[in-house]
Amino acid sequence: MSRFQTLAWGDQALVLLDQTRLPGELVYLECRQVEEVARAIEGLVVRGAPAIGVAAAYGMAVAAGEALDQEPGAFRRHLQQARARLARTRPTAVNLFWALARMEEVLVAGNGLDNRQLYERLLARAEALRAEDEAICRSLGRQGAGLLENGFKVLTHCNAGSLATAGYGTALGVIYAAQEEGKQLRVYADETRPLLQGSRLTAWELRQRGVEVTVICDNMAATVMRSAPIDCVIVGADRIAANGDVANKIGTYGVAVLARAHQIPFYVAAPVSTLDLSLASGDQIPIEERRPEEVSRGFGRATAPEDVGIYNPAFDVTPAELVTAIVSERGVARPPFGPALRQWGEGAG
Amino acid sequence: MSRFQTLAWGDQALVLLDQTRLPGELVYLECRQVEEVARAIEGLVVRGAPAIGVAAAYGMAVAAGEALDQEPGAFRRHLQQARARLARTRPTAVNLFWALARMEEVLVAGNGLDNRQLYERLLARAEALRAEDEAICRSLGRQGAGLLENGFKVLTHCNAGSLATAGYGTALGVIYAAQEEGKQLRVYADETRPLLQGSRLTAWELRQRGVEVTVICDNMAATVMRSAPIDCVIVGADRIAANGDVANKIGTYGVAVLARAHQIPFYVAAPVSTLDLSLASGDQIPIEERRPEEVSRGFGRATAPEDVGIYNPAFDVTPAELVTAIVSERGVARPPFGPALRQWGEGAG
Repeated sequence: MSRFQTLAWGDQALVLLDQTRLPGELVYLECRQVEEVARAIEGLVVRGAPAIGVAAAYGMAVAAGEALDQEPGAFRRHLQQARARLARTRPTAVNLFWALARMEEVLVAGNGLDNRQLYERLLARAEALRAEDEAICRSLGRQGAGLLENGFKVLTHCNAGSLATAGYGTALGVIYAAQEEGKQLRVYADETRPLLQGSRLTAWELRQRGVEVTVICDNMAATVMRSAPIDCVIVGADRIAANGDVANKIGTYGVAVLARAHQIPFYVAAPVSTLDLSLASGDQIPIEERRPEEVSRGFGRATAPEDVGIYNPAFDVTPAELVTAIVSERGVARPPFGPALRQWGEGAG
Repeated sequence: MSRFQTLAWGDQALVLLDQTRLPGELVYLECRQVEEVARAIEGLVVRGAPAIGVAAAYGMAVAAGEALDQEPGAFRRHLQQARARLARTRPTAVNLFWALARMEEVLVAGNGLDNRQLYERLLARAEALRAEDEAICRSLGRQGAGLLENGFKVLTHCNAGSLATAGYGTALGVIYAAQEEGKQLRVYADETRPLLQGSRLTAWELRQRGVEVTVICDNMAATVMRSAPIDCVIVGADRIAANGDVANKIGTYGVAVLARAHQIPFYVAAPVSTLDLSLASGDQIPIEERRPEEVSRGFGRATAPEDVGIYNPAFDVTPAELVTAIVSERGVARPPFGPALRQWGEGAG
């Protein structure tokens, strides 16, 4: 088991492992106000599509806890404001909106309940989403493990692991599940500029579980694909459109193009909650653009002149035609993805 | 004209612009001992294949200046040791060995001269190589400028500019020459991990000359190619084999694969001194691997756990089939490159 918890409920607060401090420090942050939860999501204390969803769910419980003493109308209004605030934190990962909708169901079903009862139901739903997320990841891992053979060299980008979920992980969950089946793997982790989730987070959690890992700069992926050589690529997702187009951390699209050029299978691992069947294609997925300073001052010292433009999209869209398979807790889908994703999405409804 | 000099001779010393301090500080380093020159090359105070060659040439003059008072046999032995020391600094850029061979010619031709006469001839040859390098870059720029049209969005990787040469630059020289023809260009500069020559150096020198530049992380190149969209890629080279395979900064190969996938022309700009016709293909080019700390502690703070493997090749090889054209001071070569490169190489002999 892990020696850390990405997020948990404790002492009437959401407790988050502060991922901005890894790998140097293992520090937990307690959020007792919904504004703290929102800022933790914006500031990447917690990140990764499934983890953002669960954190936002807990954020609604935190909001209810804050307002317990208010009269019922003000309590409900506070919860609506909290929901709006949390929904504004990050635009790309659909799990955020999915989780907030699941929390809204509690409010609708709990019409007539008093503040404390609503608080307890919201908290219970958030706890259920957390437990469900971890169970889904384990199921997803088992579904995908067959894609990895003993001795495989696997390249991954960003962090789609225990730290990106309530536990276990999506892309890394597949790796952990394969390892639990006795397969020996070597992972190449793109460091993932600008914020280095690959070298800071993926390398760290893989070592926690005893997986061999080599960190490379993003621009070394092509050379490693050719020379290692890499047997497959596996990444997570922040949103998957109805046609199988995948939004994920910036750089994923480039890795997918390189994988295709080297005839390397490119796998995407994500829970069904990452599907957005309301979008026909990835063109419609909103892409968050973040502060230029993440690029130019990512580590304190300025690494670019002050008067230059900087472009810092946090995500990109990989077209479905570059995806070899999508793994979810429901199974492994192959192209064309439309029918399988529709079936998964309906099953989830 | 530039407001800086990459390298110059002054007050009996080689004066180098310390590129490790850019863009924050404009600091010059005086080298009065050949060991200082060697360490400056190893430590990337001066970098870029043509600039390394010229710096090593001056290094031989520095070595001669150090040993003027020794008896002639010891003086000659010191120069041979200096040559060997300089040749060990960096393995990939062939210009280093080319420049040292040009300096060796002076020693062979100067048999019978006294120490001071040899010193003066070595210094004169180094000065000539510096002037020649700048003239070659200007010629190369004019040869290549026709590849760039007004309004082009050009992507480049690492730094192949004034800072990588005695002046003007190779890939950026083509951009400067096109600008001098009145063309307006926008350059997208890959930041180029691990040492950020793109964001620190290319962005800086482009702004010095008033070229519009946008810095991106290496992993954003694919998205920018698709969305900007990019009209062409132009990069420098550290060594070009007889078949047109190109060794250049790590990440170049990936950019070339992405350019091909997006049907974007991929140009290489390098002086004839970068050709190594003794190598049939790029497989034979030695690739320098540098310290893991450049990746894991590139910005001071540790950005990877201590117990993970790190792979840090400084260069990669782009196969000739991904190269649209090679630009040198002799012209623009198109595939198959063998005959044109042979002709250029013979002309240089």
